[in-house]
Amino acid sequence: MSDIIRIAQYGLGPIGIESLKLAATKPWVEILGGIDIDPAKVGRDLGELTGLPSLRGRKVYYALEHLLEHGRPDVILHTTVSKFAAAFDQLAPLARQGISVVSSCEELLFPQLNNPCLAAELDELCQLGGSRMIGTGVNPGFVMDVLPVCLTGVSREVRAIHIQRVVNAATRREPLQRKIGSGLPGEEFSRRFRAGEAGHAGLRESVALVAHCMGWKIGEIIETGEPVIADHDIQTQYLSVKQGLTCGLHQFASAAVDGRVCLTLDLKMYLDAPNPHDAIQIEGEPPLNLVLQGGVAGDQATVAALVNTARRIRKASPGLKLMTDLAVPCWS
Amino acid sequence: MSDIIRIAQYGLGPIGIESLKLAATKPWVEILGGIDIDPAKVGRDLGELTGLPSLRGRKVYYALEHLLEHGRPDVILHTTVSKFAAAFDQLAPLARQGISVVSSCEELLFPQLNNPCLAAELDELCQLGGSRMIGTGVNPGFVMDVLPVCLTGVSREVRAIHIQRVVNAATRREPLQRKIGSGLPGEEFSRRFRAGEAGHAGLRESVALVAHCMGWKIGEIIETGEPVIADHDIQTQYLSVKQGLTCGLHQFASAAVDGRVCLTLDLKMYLDAPNPHDAIQIEGEPPLNLVLQGGVAGDQATVAALVNTARRIRKASPGLKLMTDLAVPCWS
Repeated sequence: MSDIIRIAQYGLGPIGIESLKLAATKPWVEILGGIDIDPAKVGRDLGELTGLPSLRGRKVYYALEHLLEHGRPDVILHTTVSKFAAAFDQLAPLARQGISVVSSCEELLFPQLNNPCLAAELDELCQLGGSRMIGTGVNPGFVMDVLPVCLTGVSREVRAIHIQRVVNAATRREPLQRKIGSGLPGEEFSRRFRAGEAGHAGLRESVALVAHCMGWKIGEIIETGEPVIADHDIQTQYLSVKQGLTCGLHQFASAAVDGRVCLTLDLKMYLDAPNPHDAIQIEGEPPLNLVLQGGVAGDQATVAALVNTARRIRKASPGLKLMTDLAVPCWS
Repeated sequence: MSDIIRIAQYGLGPIGIESLKLAATKPWVEILGGIDIDPAKVGRDLGELTGLPSLRGRKVYYALEHLLEHGRPDVILHTTVSKFAAAFDQLAPLARQGISVVSSCEELLFPQLNNPCLAAELDELCQLGGSRMIGTGVNPGFVMDVLPVCLTGVSREVRAIHIQRVVNAATRREPLQRKIGSGLPGEEFSRRFRAGEAGHAGLRESVALVAHCMGWKIGEIIETGEPVIADHDIQTQYLSVKQGLTCGLHQFASAAVDGRVCLTLDLKMYLDAPNPHDAIQIEGEPPLNLVLQGGVAGDQATVAALVNTARRIRKASPGLKLMTDLAVPCWS
């Protein structure tokens, strides 16, 4: 196995561009090119798109087969969609080609939750083709799932796990500021949340991953979403929200074993949220009480999780993997 | 691979007894027996030693070969010594027999630091015999090494890592209360520390493991140890310390890359220490600031780390392993 990992970037939105830029700084990475279906991006030079002279001469291709004419990546960083079912058609050809994938697709953190048959099919394709695939990020992918699981490594007993995350969305990228419903009337946010058109993707997958690791046979995952209403006029780099309108969301998921609630995930992401932080309480022996003061800055860290995982996934056996199957996360 | 793991306990001091008791509660464990050279323990019934009726009929043997006459363990929980060189003669026969080991031996966290040749030899024996060996625990083994490494999984860049641990030793087992020098004149503690007869084992190994994971080529690890002097008379469950005498230690280790300090580990373990906690700061992008309020209770959690690792190590390839080589720590 060569020390150099040949990487291509699938999806060149804000997260894709940032992950490409970070990957390009690593001495163990060779960037081959990008894939995006956006006609405004196809054919463009990655050096120009990213502002990195070292990427000059690498192009954006419309499809995998065009990229493959110019080189064969070991790992693809995949940053296109949130739903596994939508990602599947992009991932299956990569699995067949034996190309490994690290994806920000939120449902891919635990694709068995919503699409067990499709997950089994992708796992089989990976094993046949010799590729590894994984979903990761910061949330889902770290603060509300992998980190609490890691903490239980020193637990004699775990009775319940409670996780809180408070994000000041004013410090985040524009798509996220819009995704949380900024500027909508509260009722419209609630309608869109119920229709699956607003809200944070992946909270249920975090619940499912933690429960899986604890060996808990949970019942239905209960999820609620409420708008957070601005109590003052808010102006961010990208948008403004009048007092009385939605400035973010309060999303909550829980699961129970035999009627006893053992997992709660409480997520607040709104503009100007005070005291952003991540907190984890493990009820058990010993009791554990973790706080990440200031929280984990989302976009920067999501990109880091993708690139750091690209090196580690190559050491796993072929298949569709969970983050908790891989070696301890590590900067690389 | 059967779901049941046959376990034997090597070393039946306080930590050994506790790890045996915890392992015996797991549905995936079958306890075969114990090994200890203490004549007062050899031949005794584990049910009687532990107070657990379920262990009646399992015995303490003087040597591995006597245990093997009664059954063959998959994994041995090893809790005898702190120094890898002293553990080697106990571990080598297990490696040859293909029996895996999870050990609390502090130097085994990163045995390459003090004994690279012996570590290479043990690794080879493990690979030949098909066994896996690993050193783990809480400190070393988690709060000052594995947890900070895990945290960097979401780091774009890591410039330095600073870790503090404050333990109220009055809540810990008797051997630990004595090991930290309780009751000694300060000068005598310092003499013993310099002679390697007092102090916490494993701090340098934690430094070495973190540096290894970060890919940092560090220079010499600098370690200092000072007595903490009691500012009042202290009475614990096991001993008493007069004001003016040693009631614990302040140990500090650091390492630099090219003259720039990139790792500091600051450990205070003393009787009646206020505000026990663990804290980790990652200097980098993003900055990360973790606090475990109250800290991780040492003895309970050390035992948990041993037993939890017993299940995970079986999935690793044969060899002498590091905790960061295994899958994410997890309660099991």
